[in-house]
Amino acid sequence: MTYANIGTLGARPGRRDELVALLTRPSVELREVGCLLYEVGVNDDEPDTVFVAELWESEESHRASLRLASVQAAIDEARPLLSGVMGGTAFSVVGSPLR
Amino acid sequence: MTYANIGTLGARPGRRDELVALLTRPSVELREVGCLLYEVGVNDDEPDTVFVAELWESEESHRASLRLASVQAAIDEARPLLSGVMGGTAFSVVGSPLR
Repeated sequence: MTYANIGTLGARPGRRDELVALLTRPSVELREVGCLLYEVGVNDDEPDTVFVAELWESEESHRASLRLASVQAAIDEARPLLSGVMGGTAFSVVGSPLR
Repeated sequence: MTYANIGTLGARPGRRDELVALLTRPSVELREVGCLLYEVGVNDDEPDTVFVAELWESEESHRASLRLASVQAAIDEARPLLSGVMGGTAFSVVGSPLR
């Protein structure tokens, strides 16, 4: 079942765009491990927050992505950019009015 | 710029699946007005919540969808199913590691 993961990542003041650059770095591996969609974004209301909306083939493919060496390295690289404030939610997709 | 709208809709106890059925009712109009993705889901942690993750061609196309008679009718139809607890966030997409 398609798994949706929605996240908010707090960036240290002034470091948001570096975090965006890191999260949008091209990755063939994510698709290979089952990532269907990975949208990174920002809004004006929360200038120090980076938003991610992800769809995965399954919850397991999402978990598998976190075990990838490249993802582990990106997480380490992101640490100094993060404020520590994080949020999000996850759900199983049950349908769409577009299908 | 692609606009992401993420929402959580609280359902009255026992009415979640009716709300899911309503939100996943096929709609050609949503795509015509600029909806790129509209995923509806649930999770076990919040049994009375329906989650939506939407992508739109623009914030304006999202707003235009809310003016559609069919969407207005669906909102009215959903009212008795809703607990009134709602949440969500919206952001402009700036990139993806999959592109």
